[in-house]
Amino acid sequence: MSNQKQNKDTIRKDSDKVKRYGKFHKNAKSSGKQQTSKVKKQTGLQYRKKQSKNVSDKFTCPVKIAFLGGLNEVGKNLTVIEYNDEIIIIDCGLAFPDVSMPGIDLVIPDFTYLEKNADKVKAIFVTHGHEDHIGGLSYLLRVVNAPVYSTKLTLGLIEYKLKEAKINSKVKLNPIKPNDVVKVGGFSVEAIHVNHSIPDSLAFAVKCKDGVIIHTGDFKIDSTPIDGEMMNLARLGQLGNDGVLCLLSDSTNAERSGYTESEKKVGESFENLFRRAGSRRLIVATFASNIHRVQQIINVAASLGRKVALSGRSLENVVAISQELGYLDVPDGIIIGIDAVKQYTDEELVIITTGSQGEPMSALTRMAMSDHRKVSVGPNDFVIISATPIPGNEKTVGNVVNELMKLGAHVVYERMYEVHVSGHACQEEQKLILGLVKPKFFIPVHGEQKHLRRHAMLGEAMGVASDNIIMASNGTEISFLSDHQYVIGDVPAGNVFVDGYGVGDVGSLVLRERKLLSEDGVIVVSAVIDSATGYNLCAPEIHSRGFVFVKESSDLFREAEDIVIRILDKYADSRKRDINALKGRIKDEVLKFMYEKTKRSPVVIPVIQEI
Amino acid sequence: MSNQKQNKDTIRKDSDKVKRYGKFHKNAKSSGKQQTSKVKKQTGLQYRKKQSKNVSDKFTCPVKIAFLGGLNEVGKNLTVIEYNDEIIIIDCGLAFPDVSMPGIDLVIPDFTYLEKNADKVKAIFVTHGHEDHIGGLSYLLRVVNAPVYSTKLTLGLIEYKLKEAKINSKVKLNPIKPNDVVKVGGFSVEAIHVNHSIPDSLAFAVKCKDGVIIHTGDFKIDSTPIDGEMMNLARLGQLGNDGVLCLLSDSTNAERSGYTESEKKVGESFENLFRRAGSRRLIVATFASNIHRVQQIINVAASLGRKVALSGRSLENVVAISQELGYLDVPDGIIIGIDAVKQYTDEELVIITTGSQGEPMSALTRMAMSDHRKVSVGPNDFVIISATPIPGNEKTVGNVVNELMKLGAHVVYERMYEVHVSGHACQEEQKLILGLVKPKFFIPVHGEQKHLRRHAMLGEAMGVASDNIIMASNGTEISFLSDHQYVIGDVPAGNVFVDGYGVGDVGSLVLRERKLLSEDGVIVVSAVIDSATGYNLCAPEIHSRGFVFVKESSDLFREAEDIVIRILDKYADSRKRDINALKGRIKDEVLKFMYEKTKRSPVVIPVIQEI
Repeated sequence: MSNQKQNKDTIRKDSDKVKRYGKFHKNAKSSGKQQTSKVKKQTGLQYRKKQSKNVSDKFTCPVKIAFLGGLNEVGKNLTVIEYNDEIIIIDCGLAFPDVSMPGIDLVIPDFTYLEKNADKVKAIFVTHGHEDHIGGLSYLLRVVNAPVYSTKLTLGLIEYKLKEAKINSKVKLNPIKPNDVVKVGGFSVEAIHVNHSIPDSLAFAVKCKDGVIIHTGDFKIDSTPIDGEMMNLARLGQLGNDGVLCLLSDSTNAERSGYTESEKKVGESFENLFRRAGSRRLIVATFASNIHRVQQIINVAASLGRKVALSGRSLENVVAISQELGYLDVPDGIIIGIDAVKQYTDEELVIITTGSQGEPMSALTRMAMSDHRKVSVGPNDFVIISATPIPGNEKTVGNVVNELMKLGAHVVYERMYEVHVSGHACQEEQKLILGLVKPKFFIPVHGEQKHLRRHAMLGEAMGVASDNIIMASNGTEISFLSDHQYVIGDVPAGNVFVDGYGVGDVGSLVLRERKLLSEDGVIVVSAVIDSATGYNLCAPEIHSRGFVFVKESSDLFREAEDIVIRILDKYADSRKRDINALKGRIKDEVLKFMYEKTKRSPVVIPVIQEI
Repeated sequence: MSNQKQNKDTIRKDSDKVKRYGKFHKNAKSSGKQQTSKVKKQTGLQYRKKQSKNVSDKFTCPVKIAFLGGLNEVGKNLTVIEYNDEIIIIDCGLAFPDVSMPGIDLVIPDFTYLEKNADKVKAIFVTHGHEDHIGGLSYLLRVVNAPVYSTKLTLGLIEYKLKEAKINSKVKLNPIKPNDVVKVGGFSVEAIHVNHSIPDSLAFAVKCKDGVIIHTGDFKIDSTPIDGEMMNLARLGQLGNDGVLCLLSDSTNAERSGYTESEKKVGESFENLFRRAGSRRLIVATFASNIHRVQQIINVAASLGRKVALSGRSLENVVAISQELGYLDVPDGIIIGIDAVKQYTDEELVIITTGSQGEPMSALTRMAMSDHRKVSVGPNDFVIISATPIPGNEKTVGNVVNELMKLGAHVVYERMYEVHVSGHACQEEQKLILGLVKPKFFIPVHGEQKHLRRHAMLGEAMGVASDNIIMASNGTEISFLSDHQYVIGDVPAGNVFVDGYGVGDVGSLVLRERKLLSEDGVIVVSAVIDSATGYNLCAPEIHSRGFVFVKESSDLFREAEDIVIRILDKYADSRKRDINALKGRIKDEVLKFMYEKTKRSPVVIPVIQEI
């Protein structure tokens, strides 16, 4: 690597504490940019100094970690590890659109970097089967051909998705178990059991000649997990004692002090609540993929002699896959079809449903809106929403609760009665991992800026050298040159929107148009003019959608038509006739008129046809 | 009132506990309707029985309470009290639009009932100066002419709004003080001091010949309030001992156990945090109207020798009005203009700003986006967001926090360090009020269904007869016939959308169009045909907005044009030419084609001009 290149890249080696966590964000605005250039200067000097001292420690080639997703966001996790021209990928998730992305179905990472380096990609390792870790795979595997390694359940869920995308036959899925070590090229990748809100979750220890990188995936430490095995802390400690170059650890709950409760706690709550429900019908909403939760509901239902019906396609799929692969222990005859609920009395039933986040089309929302074909909610229903709202969903979940209550149902929700525990580690667990792994470098991953920052502070409290805590962004590429030096570079990264069949054909321009359309609607102004004389050949027409209630605004449109006619007349009379200028004029004048009259700014589309 | 009318109305007198709180909701869906009819039958019987027993207790005329807003929602509070053909109104607020109302500026109550009965309206009493209690006044006062009564600060804020609407000269604003009793027609209305997050807040005791109604407004019980006076519990107790027909009480915090902390707590937190900020600049975001909070910031700033600058128009207005009316105690020279901040060092400054809810155009959001003209945030800023996100705003507030952190700022937010306390009573306070007032009837107000329900349960726990707890909705009119009998009727109520200058011209149809436009955009298909022959006279044009990235979709549009040409040709050849059928055909075929190609359903506007 030439000196020039080194100076161009950003080298991390400053010591000011306050500045430290704010410097390396690509998304930082103008003032951020100024800081960066300042840092470059400082650190360039320090870098050279360090380099001359430790030249012998240098790795044979840089160990690189790049992020295509999952930083400064919750979702679409994708980490790239590169060494000696070989790449392995950890996870490939999707993100769900927020309110700024109307019409978008889902968001996947920008794969440009992987497409360009497709021949280097040796394998994809997947930590667990949640959408934000597997949801982008069926898109990535169209442009990159690599075998996928994960546990049986995760692969089962991936296979389902690949089948939907009709690319399952092309992809090699390799089942692994915790403690397995997979050799791919110059890497050896060890699977480490972790606890999470879906069974069969893994962390990975990625070894190459110059060091070990540990990626926790999503995790919590559950000492009484439903599937019987605690996270393999011993192995993490062993690796820590042997020496770990870099730790990438889940930051989701970094704002929460203490410890995340065991999943078993929820089972106890179910026991109490199911008894309290008495002769009422039970409806429990939870995440489809939370198989542990489903298992606990089934267990309590069985103990009380209730049948279990499932509502919601994703839930039915996940339960089917889990049952088939042996991840659910279901007593014979306890699960009934949703069509069969009418054959049972309320006290004989538990309905498990999707919709714990108030998703508009979900089964629970349809029940709340009296729009569910099989389940009609009433005063004899005891509803448990076994989840907490993901930030941004508070309002929709609240609405579902309100509507269920209006139907007379008793509803247990949010933090009432401990009907939900998180799947992610809180601060004490995060610290524990840092203490066991004792990494040289620490990169907080999976979370928004506020989560990453808090996690960084925990890292410092746990003794990671403050210069060795790296605040990365999507698109950051960190190249470790030795076990105390790194440079930061760029790879292409961003949001790719999936809308219907379109992948990436909707960008920020189209979204901006959609936002404008949604705010004040659209007006179409149509006119036909004689291409020879320039005169308009018929009365111009004005149509609108989403602008005003048309029936009550005929005067408004008539006046606008008069304006258009005047412009057309002027156009015909003018010496130099420019059709594009005419369109612009009509657009501007109609917009100005409408704004004066209504204080609204609709999108105006002028359609002028010449014959 | 005839027997027929009594049966038509819903009479409350059932005893089943579970059903009770779910029965009288206008918004209840199909299954809800079934319940209502069942109830009518039961209660009709019981009603007659009671009536024959207690016929002598009957009021001289019914005491009526109707709700035009504030029930099953947070916002646009408006309560109507009617007796002997005279009406008084308590509060007239607005609600802010949610994501289902794109482009809408604000939502006000439907005033139809008050317009119809304008001559009966004797006065409007306002509890306090928050938007959800005063924001609809400038609209109501265009259709109803009545004097407004409230405290000095509240009237100051109302006057500002009426001036903006240019109707201030027409409206009589009557200042009152706590303990004042105002006689209007057959009513006498007593103002009672309460604590809240804005000074000068009131509850009202409305007396008429047949009973007393107490409306708490928004309240908390603060034993150490900033303005020195605790809520007048003694007077409420006295009224309770004398006998109260009905209590209407604030339900906002009915889900929270315990007591709301004193506003003073926040001052203590400010003292600690301001010291911790050291030499950094302080930026504190809070609600513009929280004058107590602003006072405390000024106090601590003054004690540390910092100047205070204000950013945000609403904040500047409220502070100016409060200062003028003597509600803010500001040491000379401590407030500086935002333009002057450059003349001071960071450690000499506190900037108070709007935007604590992450509002897109607010001062704090602009600072976070590096888009504020006067304040550029960096690592030497210590930002305190002195508010908790209102449900639905969690994500926007989180984004502002993230962006501020990316600029390097230290940010204190949400429940960290007690930088915010609620302005509303929690369960123990709500129970205390119920215990003091001991009402015959209790109507939980101000809140969503889940809040109203919880409050109803508290009412029952406090000994209000369960039959006398009334779950009302917007549009519910309760007529008390005696102190143990009431009937429920209807008045028109609903959301009226304000969009630019338009009040009520955007309805659900226009909003539905906006939603469709936002999801998949719009396509305009334009063609010109010969009215005599039916042949198209030039190539049809297809324009789109918010649908696809046009530059990369030329093939798609070309194919669609071919389809349109084929349809036009067929039309010309057909024997019976129906232009509307042609438009429908083009719309359907283009939509079908686009859906097949993109799996999107844009709004298609066919524009066919005949010459």
